[in-house]
Amino acid sequence: MSTPASPQQPLVGLVMGSDSDWPVMEAAADALAEFGVPFEADVVSAHRMPEEMIAYGKSARGRGLKVIIAGAGGAAHLPGMLASVTTLPVIGVPVPLKTLDGMDSLLSIVQMPAGVPVATVSIGGARNAGLLAVRMLASAQDELGQQLAERLAEFAVGLKAAAARKGE
Amino acid sequence: MSTPASPQQPLVGLVMGSDSDWPVMEAAADALAEFGVPFEADVVSAHRMPEEMIAYGKSARGRGLKVIIAGAGGAAHLPGMLASVTTLPVIGVPVPLKTLDGMDSLLSIVQMPAGVPVATVSIGGARNAGLLAVRMLASAQDELGQQLAERLAEFAVGLKAAAARKGE
Amino acid sequence: MSTPASPQQPLVGLVMGSDSDWPVMEAAADALAEFGVPFEADVVSAHRMPEEMIAYGKSARGRGLKVIIAGAGGAAHLPGMLASVTTLPVIGVPVPLKTLDGMDSLLSIVQMPAGVPVATVSIGGARNAGLLAVRMLASAQDELGQQLAERLAEFAVGLKAAAARKGE
Amino acid sequence: MSTPASPQQPLVGLVMGSDSDWPVMEAAADALAEFGVPFEADVVSAHRMPEEMIAYGKSARGRGLKVIIAGAGGAAHLPGMLASVTTLPVIGVPVPLKTLDGMDSLLSIVQMPAGVPVATVSIGGARNAGLLAVRMLASAQDELGQQLAERLAEFAVGLKAAAARKGE
Amino acid sequence: MSTPASPQQPLVGLVMGSDSDWPVMEAAADALAEFGVPFEADVVSAHRMPEEMIAYGKSARGRGLKVIIAGAGGAAHLPGMLASVTTLPVIGVPVPLKTLDGMDSLLSIVQMPAGVPVATVSIGGARNAGLLAVRMLASAQDELGQQLAERLAEFAVGLKAAAARKGE
Amino acid sequence: MSTPASPQQPLVGLVMGSDSDWPVMEAAADALAEFGVPFEADVVSAHRMPEEMIAYGKSARGRGLKVIIAGAGGAAHLPGMLASVTTLPVIGVPVPLKTLDGMDSLLSIVQMPAGVPVATVSIGGARNAGLLAVRMLASAQDELGQQLAERLAEFAVGLKAAAARKGE
Amino acid sequence: MSTPASPQQPLVGLVMGSDSDWPVMEAAADALAEFGVPFEADVVSAHRMPEEMIAYGKSARGRGLKVIIAGAGGAAHLPGMLASVTTLPVIGVPVPLKTLDGMDSLLSIVQMPAGVPVATVSIGGARNAGLLAVRMLASAQDELGQQLAERLAEFAVGLKAAAARKGE
Amino acid sequence: MSTPASPQQPLVGLVMGSDSDWPVMEAAADALAEFGVPFEADVVSAHRMPEEMIAYGKSARGRGLKVIIAGAGGAAHLPGMLASVTTLPVIGVPVPLKTLDGMDSLLSIVQMPAGVPVATVSIGGARNAGLLAVRMLASAQDELGQQLAERLAEFAVGLKAAAARKGE
Repeated sequence: MSTPASPQQPLVGLVMGSDSDWPVMEAAADALAEFGVPFEADVVSAHRMPEEMIAYGKSARGRGLKVIIAGAGGAAHLPGMLASVTTLPVIGVPVPLKTLDGMDSLLSIVQMPAGVPVATVSIGGARNAGLLAVRMLASAQDELGQQLAERLAEFAVGLKAAAARKGE
Repeated sequence: MSTPASPQQPLVGLVMGSDSDWPVMEAAADALAEFGVPFEADVVSAHRMPEEMIAYGKSARGRGLKVIIAGAGGAAHLPGMLASVTTLPVIGVPVPLKTLDGMDSLLSIVQMPAGVPVATVSIGGARNAGLLAVRMLASAQDELGQQLAERLAEFAVGLKAAAARKGE
Repeated sequence: MSTPASPQQPLVGLVMGSDSDWPVMEAAADALAEFGVPFEADVVSAHRMPEEMIAYGKSARGRGLKVIIAGAGGAAHLPGMLASVTTLPVIGVPVPLKTLDGMDSLLSIVQMPAGVPVATVSIGGARNAGLLAVRMLASAQDELGQQLAERLAEFAVGLKAAAARKGE
Repeated sequence: MSTPASPQQPLVGLVMGSDSDWPVMEAAADALAEFGVPFEADVVSAHRMPEEMIAYGKSARGRGLKVIIAGAGGAAHLPGMLASVTTLPVIGVPVPLKTLDGMDSLLSIVQMPAGVPVATVSIGGARNAGLLAVRMLASAQDELGQQLAERLAEFAVGLKAAAARKGE
Repeated sequence: MSTPASPQQPLVGLVMGSDSDWPVMEAAADALAEFGVPFEADVVSAHRMPEEMIAYGKSARGRGLKVIIAGAGGAAHLPGMLASVTTLPVIGVPVPLKTLDGMDSLLSIVQMPAGVPVATVSIGGARNAGLLAVRMLASAQDELGQQLAERLAEFAVGLKAAAARKGE
Repeated sequence: MSTPASPQQPLVGLVMGSDSDWPVMEAAADALAEFGVPFEADVVSAHRMPEEMIAYGKSARGRGLKVIIAGAGGAAHLPGMLASVTTLPVIGVPVPLKTLDGMDSLLSIVQMPAGVPVATVSIGGARNAGLLAVRMLASAQDELGQQLAERLAEFAVGLKAAAARKGE
Repeated sequence: MSTPASPQQPLVGLVMGSDSDWPVMEAAADALAEFGVPFEADVVSAHRMPEEMIAYGKSARGRGLKVIIAGAGGAAHLPGMLASVTTLPVIGVPVPLKTLDGMDSLLSIVQMPAGVPVATVSIGGARNAGLLAVRMLASAQDELGQQLAERLAEFAVGLKAAAARKGE
Repeated sequence: MSTPASPQQPLVGLVMGSDSDWPVMEAAADALAEFGVPFEADVVSAHRMPEEMIAYGKSARGRGLKVIIAGAGGAAHLPGMLASVTTLPVIGVPVPLKTLDGMDSLLSIVQMPAGVPVATVSIGGARNAGLLAVRMLASAQDELGQQLAERLAEFAVGLKAAAARKGE
């Protein structure tokens, strides 16, 4: 798996359970890159490297991350387990596997017990996970927040323009 | 419906499609109150007052809100429509109605098209919606963010302690 | 997207959330054309151009439309949102996307709250949406209604003849 | 079953597969009554009185009906079978039975083959079926259509007002 | 559609809603042919030729049929409607269409109301429909019944032998 | 469990996996009794007494049975296993248990592999199982068949009359 | 929660995500007790005490446990996470929560990725989890295994006798 | 079907309902082979050779087997029926067929009644079935158990290393 880490201090940790999730999760990386948000991308499997996964989550805030995006499929435990060891907001992307069209992934991610939320996006919706991370960062009152908020507003204008063009 | 608005500038807008959603959504208000996060609570129906809904979403950032929590059931369009008119992060709570156990609400909220994300929590998971909003606010580097991050860490300790006590 | 608008005053507004819905929605246009019903076709995205969408719905009756057909997929909010800003009958077509076979689209469209109905047809059933619009127009007592009612009767005869031929 | 027929020429035929559907379907009758639309209400079972059902559908337009509303549960064949023997628009109401929460009723009604549309509303959504019938009648350019269109506009204002009141 | 009618008095009526169902339904014809059971095959659409369908069902017993096999997809009303106009046993075959994998077909066929049973087989299970018809005929005490019962016993031996061979 | 065996040679074997299924399965016994069809009723568990179950199925035809009705819930293996050891037609009744509304029971019964059919009725549809058995017996050309066919015709008239009365 | 630990060296670790799971999970304890298998019971929440959970799993084999039974509901991560940190067989019990009838719990537990199996039993099937643990222990060739195998054989006889008695 | 039996006394019986299940089930054989666990592989159809199936299950323990792995699709009765005639632990693998993505297979296998457990793995999860069998064997205190436990620990290290490599 290519690891499109960016030179600056990463603000978003983009992780997935397996490198086979990358074709889906890449869209999150692209969205972050479009908004110039520095991020790191890693394979962190809840089931194959549970202690590394816990360590990743526990150290995330201290390392300067502000949001975690986690994609997983089937019995998709990665987003929820990360959310249980960090106080950062965790965005979960249900990755569809060979059967069930991602319904198992969706339910495994979204149906978290009270106390440990995961911000779940649509099945295969990695691009939206990236955009949601941008919205979260844009919500802060610092300079980056301001900049991102402006770019999000431009982005919305762009969406509208593209949609309108198609309608002509 | 009681409107548990807090005296300070609200940071979270808590809206729902109908006052019949309040028994579910109240848990979001409670979570925000526990963390001392000022919020406003309103009925804003996507289908019965669409223009007010759009106005609510468009003005949200300008009015100082940082996060929107929106609960709705059935063909639950409120969270997604708000997300389409604001650049703030929008958290969606699928409210279960009389039939289908909230599966319709969940899919109507979570399956948003690329470009307009909604941070979806579990069916009836309003408490987690509140906690997710706190995590988002705690992600900022300002004083409030610092405070909330500390309280979230304490909260996690509390969760563990309560769980452990039950296991004794 | 080709916009097969007809020269006369359009009676049916055919809209969809994205031009990628056109391969499905085209069958509605074809059905309307077969019955000589003038219509307009547009991309009107609930999520990417919400205000234009609202404006479209609000102006529909005044512009002489008698029925709206709206197709959308996933968290399919377009039909329901249009129904909330017009008093015209709105026909919803659930467009199937990559996963879930259109079940998300169907539930997002059909499970509308009391007060704001959407006349939902089958998953991918755009041809039936066109025919349903024709039935609605044929229900009026004016000249067009009479004509369309006659043509619908002929159409039913044709369906039967075609089915019977296949059985020979 | 009480048959709340109105003295004038009925414009809407309200039928259901069994009188046990009446507690659900009554809301359609109420909506029609609120708008002063004359209607007839009957038990017409697709499975227990198939020929009467066919006769009902075939005679509907000739008897002056403009819309049919049909409710049924389980293997809900009534709306689709009526739609196959009339050119009137048929509105289908999926009635939930003891198991499956009406999902079987919904799919049996909405998944009609190309050529024979049924305008399906939500599970148990009889009130919306009534309102959809009103929208169809209000779409015509005759005097009744005008009146109903005005009343629908007032109705929408009422919905908004009620929703707003709850939000205060 | 080829109509593989057999010269003798047909004992089984094999019908389907559309000739596009033939690739699935052919396996029922093959099973009947293997057992030498004379049958007739027809396209009889519940929705496109409802009165012919009713006539088919009503005349079935009188014409000497002993079992009806009906295949249909989506809002699959054919088996249930036939069962409502004949006292013969009706076997329903849920034909899978483009979406939902035949779940809509299955529920539309199997969830019949009390009073009008349909003997439903698996999704796409036309071969089993044929074999079930043979079992029904083999249940009678006449000569044909005896013969078929013997052949069914041989058939079971053959199934076992084939399965065992695969296991070697 | 009461065993409402009838004095004459039983023609239908009514079995269920557990006596807790009796409240559902009783309706099959009632239907058979209404038509004067002699039957036997037993608890025969596929999982708790597999060899007795196999023995039951293997001896069924020899003991004079003509049809087997088998009800079971959850991983409902009884109908299919009986069908694998008899050449009689086997009718399966999906019994709903505490969760899943009988969907597991339905799929476990209806989705049989090619070669071994089960005539499946609706979830909880034991009355229809009884009526389907009557239809099968009425399909034979012997005296009983004639009698039952006539009674089924009367029964259909009765259904219609009852339905019509409710519509008055 | 009562902790019915047994005086001897526990062989089975019975854990659950919350003490609210005890009413369901108690049946596993009862089954183990019936067979005289010493066990320990604890609340070990994957989400509220993730590190304790990992420690529990990692130490399980060393502490002499031979099987782990883990029950959880919703996004049920406990069984899978334990399986990822032990080489013992882990049995998962899907606990049904307020909505979705345990389907979310089932999929979250059973759909584990290749490499980390969980032995899943039915929704709410804690008694079977206990019996499965007994079967596993009875599979060993030591004295306990011999004893348990004999008792399981007696148990099967008892099941049959009980079932047969109900059928009398 | 190739029968990759191993020369030593088989400890695991690997059976499937049809040789068409082999492409899925082969992964169980591979996993067992990787760990050097001797096994036998057979086609044993619950429906086509029920008595051989019962004989297989009844003789399994006596022949020295310690675990049975059974794969089946659709109305998948093989694992549950085997579990009902042996006291060995039975692992069930839901094999996905042409429709429903294996959901029918999963429910038919996992939803066993109290008293007769099946250790169910994921849809198509034959590799995990093999690994689960190894875990069960590794749970015993004999020499083989010790060896397998060590190899499982190495295996977990390998999984982690492979996952980590992908993340680099």
